[in-house]
Amino acid sequence: MSEVLTKTQRAVLWYPPAYDIRVETIPVPNILHPDDAIVKIKLSGLCGSDLHVYRGHEDVHDPLVCGHEFVGEVVALGPSFTPTSQGRPELYATLRIGDKVVSPFTISCGECQFCRRGVTCRCIHSQLFGIPNLPGGQAQYVRVPKAGGTLFKVDSITSSLSSGQDQVITDSSLLLLADILPTGVFAVLQALQHPKISPFINGVPYPFNSYLPDAVASSQPTTLSLQDRTLTLAVVGLGPVGVCATVSLLELLSDVHGIDYRIVAVDMNPSRREKMQAVLAAMSPSTKVDTVKVADIPEAKDTVALWTNGIGCNAVLEIVGNNSALSLAYELVGPFGLISSVGVHQAPQLPLTGREVYDKNVSFDFGRCPVRSMFPTAASILLKRQDVFGGVGETASLIEKVVSFDSAVDAYEAFDKGRCGKILFDPWM
Amino acid sequence: MSEVLTKTQRAVLWYPPAYDIRVETIPVPNILHPDDAIVKIKLSGLCGSDLHVYRGHEDVHDPLVCGHEFVGEVVALGPSFTPTSQGRPELYATLRIGDKVVSPFTISCGECQFCRRGVTCRCIHSQLFGIPNLPGGQAQYVRVPKAGGTLFKVDSITSSLSSGQDQVITDSSLLLLADILPTGVFAVLQALQHPKISPFINGVPYPFNSYLPDAVASSQPTTLSLQDRTLTLAVVGLGPVGVCATVSLLELLSDVHGIDYRIVAVDMNPSRREKMQAVLAAMSPSTKVDTVKVADIPEAKDTVALWTNGIGCNAVLEIVGNNSALSLAYELVGPFGLISSVGVHQAPQLPLTGREVYDKNVSFDFGRCPVRSMFPTAASILLKRQDVFGGVGETASLIEKVVSFDSAVDAYEAFDKGRCGKILFDPWM
Repeated sequence: MSEVLTKTQRAVLWYPPAYDIRVETIPVPNILHPDDAIVKIKLSGLCGSDLHVYRGHEDVHDPLVCGHEFVGEVVALGPSFTPTSQGRPELYATLRIGDKVVSPFTISCGECQFCRRGVTCRCIHSQLFGIPNLPGGQAQYVRVPKAGGTLFKVDSITSSLSSGQDQVITDSSLLLLADILPTGVFAVLQALQHPKISPFINGVPYPFNSYLPDAVASSQPTTLSLQDRTLTLAVVGLGPVGVCATVSLLELLSDVHGIDYRIVAVDMNPSRREKMQAVLAAMSPSTKVDTVKVADIPEAKDTVALWTNGIGCNAVLEIVGNNSALSLAYELVGPFGLISSVGVHQAPQLPLTGREVYDKNVSFDFGRCPVRSMFPTAASILLKRQDVFGGVGETASLIEKVVSFDSAVDAYEAFDKGRCGKILFDPWM
Repeated sequence: MSEVLTKTQRAVLWYPPAYDIRVETIPVPNILHPDDAIVKIKLSGLCGSDLHVYRGHEDVHDPLVCGHEFVGEVVALGPSFTPTSQGRPELYATLRIGDKVVSPFTISCGECQFCRRGVTCRCIHSQLFGIPNLPGGQAQYVRVPKAGGTLFKVDSITSSLSSGQDQVITDSSLLLLADILPTGVFAVLQALQHPKISPFINGVPYPFNSYLPDAVASSQPTTLSLQDRTLTLAVVGLGPVGVCATVSLLELLSDVHGIDYRIVAVDMNPSRREKMQAVLAAMSPSTKVDTVKVADIPEAKDTVALWTNGIGCNAVLEIVGNNSALSLAYELVGPFGLISSVGVHQAPQLPLTGREVYDKNVSFDFGRCPVRSMFPTAASILLKRQDVFGGVGETASLIEKVVSFDSAVDAYEAFDKGRCGKILFDPWM
């Protein structure tokens, strides 16, 4: 079935203890398990969380192939992939050599109780690409375990979503599906689907018993006015995930009727605010972007106070992952509001007291994005917003440039020092 | 309109600094504002949170009339109450002298943006009964500000819910609507309506886009099996609110089809566990109670581990309000689970690290119950479970006895020392 692969490939490796990146020639991976696929990589990403390893902050002591974002083409499949596969994830029956695929940054089997429930980030087989046991995507080939549960076929985006119209999706934008865009979408969905936000979306006062039996449905048939359905949101952190979250918020809210909304997008870093502004400019006028105020921290506090008469936001998306961001989110959120936190938090104790969270009736959602389950929503946004996500190196692009592995050492250093934006590798360049 | 009231009344007063309860003769309250009602009290409750004041733990330095739970009859109404009232909460047009009413433990106007959204606990006019500015319900008469937004007419329970059947609701059970039962229901609704629990209730994998436009609905039409829809819950804290939460859980879940569930009800106090057992016995066989395991803390941990193969609960209701309870809730909850916390938390910092909540994808809901918005659901449960809530002094009763004000000093002392269960006062006894 599979094409004859070369025996060796080039890959970007990290060596302990820190800051040691080397481009080496290593063996091409083989199928080790019947559920494996080998993917020939077209583009792989350098992600902010690669820097945790780069800087030696992770508990890793062996060399590893870096990277957990990649888009590529299937070149070999294990024997589990057969048209007669039944009772397993659909791709075991339908995935073919030559299919273009994207992978989440972790594998997920699609078969354990967490995956069946859609909670793919907590798959019992979960493993991050780019650890010693699971070589990453900054290579020419990568082995994908549990590939029938993990991978996402790119043609399913266009076939299911573009209603037959031919539409070009750039490879560089597909790479955003590995982590960044789904994580932004997850932050948004956690907020918009929360019962505390339901009155704004549905116009029915809390508690809106959306799926409990009628017997306990609210006996108040009141419909809220537009004024009462004015949703105030903040996005804390405008790195690539924060930008994706803001774009996703605008896209999803633009489909909801009968509400009004305003968003403050916050970052202390001027270049991140500039990028956010450029993205908004690129979206206009097809999307109403004048509802977004891009602000530094003091401006954000003032804006929310002004907009809400000092009451605060209905929801805050926290996309940084440290205690200052969480404290700011708490400061910005209003009574009966919620904080959707997708930032990767570390060891410090949460910076809030029980009294503070009780007195404001605050809700929180913490944790890692179930990327595989976010693909359909994220892909629909990606397709719709190729004007934002499709480009490379433009003012509004999330991706600054595509480089060869020869530039890997410099790219890590520049990215670590904050001297460049998001960089992709073309392993064949 | 109003009957001629006596000029004085008996009431239970607290004097600073602590432990000083006196029964005194004081003036009967008057209508002070057009939206006021005066309620003649039939029964008033002694609540665990009255003990915060009793012990001198609240920041109060003036004598006050105690109590925030009462059921009674309207004896005077301000001029805002008129059949021609329009554009205001319905009771301003419909409430009459002689109507039997229950009040939440705080007033809520029904007109501010929080009340309109159903978030009555965060009403901008919110005031707790039983503070120096708002005399409480352990009296013969009480003034209820914003009464058209605050009060709940008892006959609306029977007329809207019992389908014309005459059904007796005891006054002592109505008193449970002031705080305890709605707070239990709130803890339950926060859990069952959460998107993380939605897959169990609906059978559709996460993210179930219950009220977002179809465009972003999940493209996975999978329906979960009964095995995947087995919900494991814990109730931490079996005081009166915890018992109400457990009963409400059983009632609300019994109406959901196609799921299975099991509940561990936890308390370290044997007499509270005995009460919980007695309540479950009283509910059987009309409700399936064999899904509930009443346990002390070590038993609870073992039970959850056994039931879930070490994975943990899908949701934990935390009804205590301190850090040990919150830590236990965290220990019991599984990945992608949630903690619905209605306990009144105090000054200490939350006992969890950012890493802990990220790594488990935990959600939290904190804060005070919007009692007024919970009334319809709580009243339907109260009506259905008069076998549990209707009695006084029986093994399964949440209320131990009804006493006169002459016993107030002793009642506070005994309740404070944990020598008795919930006590009600009959101010006319």
